[in-house]
Amino acid sequence: MDKQQIAQSLQTLRDSKPLVVNVTNYVVMNNTANALLAIGASPIMAHSAQEMAEMMSFAGCLVINIGTLDSVWIPRMLFAVEQANINGKTVILDPVGCGASTLRTEVSRQIAEQADKLIIRGNASEIIALAGEQAQSKGVDALDSSDSAVNAAKFCVEQYGANVVISGASDYVVTAEATYKLDNGHEMMPYVTGMGCSHTAITGAFAAVGEVTGLAATAILGVAGEIAAEKSAGPGSLQMNLLDTLYLLDVETVLARLKLQQV
Amino acid sequence: MDKQQIAQSLQTLRDSKPLVVNVTNYVVMNNTANALLAIGASPIMAHSAQEMAEMMSFAGCLVINIGTLDSVWIPRMLFAVEQANINGKTVILDPVGCGASTLRTEVSRQIAEQADKLIIRGNASEIIALAGEQAQSKGVDALDSSDSAVNAAKFCVEQYGANVVISGASDYVVTAEATYKLDNGHEMMPYVTGMGCSHTAITGAFAAVGEVTGLAATAILGVAGEIAAEKSAGPGSLQMNLLDTLYLLDVETVLARLKLQQV
Amino acid sequence: MDKQQIAQSLQTLRDSKPLVVNVTNYVVMNNTANALLAIGASPIMAHSAQEMAEMMSFAGCLVINIGTLDSVWIPRMLFAVEQANINGKTVILDPVGCGASTLRTEVSRQIAEQADKLIIRGNASEIIALAGEQAQSKGVDALDSSDSAVNAAKFCVEQYGANVVISGASDYVVTAEATYKLDNGHEMMPYVTGMGCSHTAITGAFAAVGEVTGLAATAILGVAGEIAAEKSAGPGSLQMNLLDTLYLLDVETVLARLKLQQV
Repeated sequence: MDKQQIAQSLQTLRDSKPLVVNVTNYVVMNNTANALLAIGASPIMAHSAQEMAEMMSFAGCLVINIGTLDSVWIPRMLFAVEQANINGKTVILDPVGCGASTLRTEVSRQIAEQADKLIIRGNASEIIALAGEQAQSKGVDALDSSDSAVNAAKFCVEQYGANVVISGASDYVVTAEATYKLDNGHEMMPYVTGMGCSHTAITGAFAAVGEVTGLAATAILGVAGEIAAEKSAGPGSLQMNLLDTLYLLDVETVLARLKLQQV
Repeated sequence: MDKQQIAQSLQTLRDSKPLVVNVTNYVVMNNTANALLAIGASPIMAHSAQEMAEMMSFAGCLVINIGTLDSVWIPRMLFAVEQANINGKTVILDPVGCGASTLRTEVSRQIAEQADKLIIRGNASEIIALAGEQAQSKGVDALDSSDSAVNAAKFCVEQYGANVVISGASDYVVTAEATYKLDNGHEMMPYVTGMGCSHTAITGAFAAVGEVTGLAATAILGVAGEIAAEKSAGPGSLQMNLLDTLYLLDVETVLARLKLQQV
Repeated sequence: MDKQQIAQSLQTLRDSKPLVVNVTNYVVMNNTANALLAIGASPIMAHSAQEMAEMMSFAGCLVINIGTLDSVWIPRMLFAVEQANINGKTVILDPVGCGASTLRTEVSRQIAEQADKLIIRGNASEIIALAGEQAQSKGVDALDSSDSAVNAAKFCVEQYGANVVISGASDYVVTAEATYKLDNGHEMMPYVTGMGCSHTAITGAFAAVGEVTGLAATAILGVAGEIAAEKSAGPGSLQMNLLDTLYLLDVETVLARLKLQQV
């Protein structure tokens, strides 16, 4: 994909308003739904096995986020992935805190193995832990730099047949064909909880309209975050301005701002 | 009710600060509580059967919202409705995503049948699905116009002995005695998640002080949303400005802005 | 602690970025995480018994908030407290709605009894109910003034070996050695849901760096809330401005604004 195609995806998404089904964590359900609405998608937060087969039959994709994992939710997630597979839908996995506990690492790997069509979006520590390397995580924050996770991402691409997005000071998108580095965004973004979760959900919105590399979501969230941060005194106003910016963003602004290189 | 009575309800609500008990969905718990606080009510989010009998004995009303339904929460909701009935409290039902899955449709109808004193607040697709007509829903968004749901609402009024509020470009309030059309609000409002859920909760706050038609909540949220949207660049600032506006709103502004007609 | 030490704690916190593990309620998970990030801590929201032993081994402290209590979460909370005890970590208890239901009162006392190292942060009605006196609560709001809860707090200090923080128009910090009164904050703060929950979580962040009286958190949230409210038209903008203010706050501003006296 070139810059033009990436930026154009924004219009494609808005024209088709895809339904993004989210099995996600309690912390970010509200702002994830708002980010999806602002970019032009149609979010639903659902998790019951009693309706997931139906949901997956008409969903655009399935977002799985393990941020507040427990023994009640794990079978719900696995059932949802099974239904996504049956219906040929892409699963977007956010392995929140992978490496911070054995439970999170194991469940992340189990979901990654089970999903047929898969995109993984995590921070460096999570991707490194998912690949089985020694990561330095503390809670859900990354202590590793995104640059140090590219090899781990390549391992995940091969191991799970996935495309992998690493968020950080620089973002990376790693596919079987190429590795891209994106240098938008802003250092204040990690001070808003669930910024990565929004990144994952928006990756799902683009996957639902056929953009399954993760490039468009990464580009657009990076550009929007950068614009929003320029107007923001702190993380409270950043969260608000990000939603406004996602809503107002146009193809031309994405093209003009996007810093993308193949590496 | 005439305009003057509707607007005056705002003062009545603030004077008595009613306790609104919410069994609601994970996505909107935070902004629903904030909307209730801003308008002058006292919200509590509670769901445990171990305390619901006590809660219903001193609650002003019971709000039931099925947005993130599952087999653990369904019996909690039904138990809460039973306790509301025993204590003579009004139930306000938000059938989120009714029509989007069989589960949601069936549970919505079950709750509507069980509640003795009932107000239903939904979008057009939800009300149409609740009435058993063929609705066009996608996830939790309405694809039907609110105008097309008035007959379905009339069916629900008769079937469930309820007052029914339909949210949309125009809002409708349908009771056994009359049908009202309200034309406030703003097209940006559906881009904030849980705007309908706040509408439902505020309907509960007014029901708790004796205004059980749904008119006052619909009028006041419409006027507040309209004022807030005029100051907002996008849905992020709209969410913030809506809370500020609800907090600052006075009876005179509601009267001056309200577009209400009986139809 | 004198004013200088209290204000200086802010720098200590930022330098060490402690990991605060929160077993908290659905309503406030998002804004609590954001408040912790803004002040400079590293939050994780986790509750599964399958990972809590691991979490407590590297956590800075444990925050327990009973705001949306049920029979599924109670054993999770008790297990987490047990693990905190084993690892010598301080537990910060927020007895949300203590007194509003028998369940909440009993579980609050059970947790308070079980925790070895304990700080309690509540409003006046909650602290009075926890101490077994007759409280006037309605839902989760306090109807009692904070001044009237000081004796109840002293009882809790003795009964549970805890330090106790009472939030209200004046805040009080009660320890075995002394009682402090703090007069910052703003009357608009109770109109933002979860403001007390953020207070509790920030108390945890300071406890994780050795400030276990509750004074630093109370001082800093009071000063930040006061500054934020001065810029805010209503509770929507107050929530946003509070996060910005916590992020930007410096030691000098805390020192200049803090109204603290021993009583």
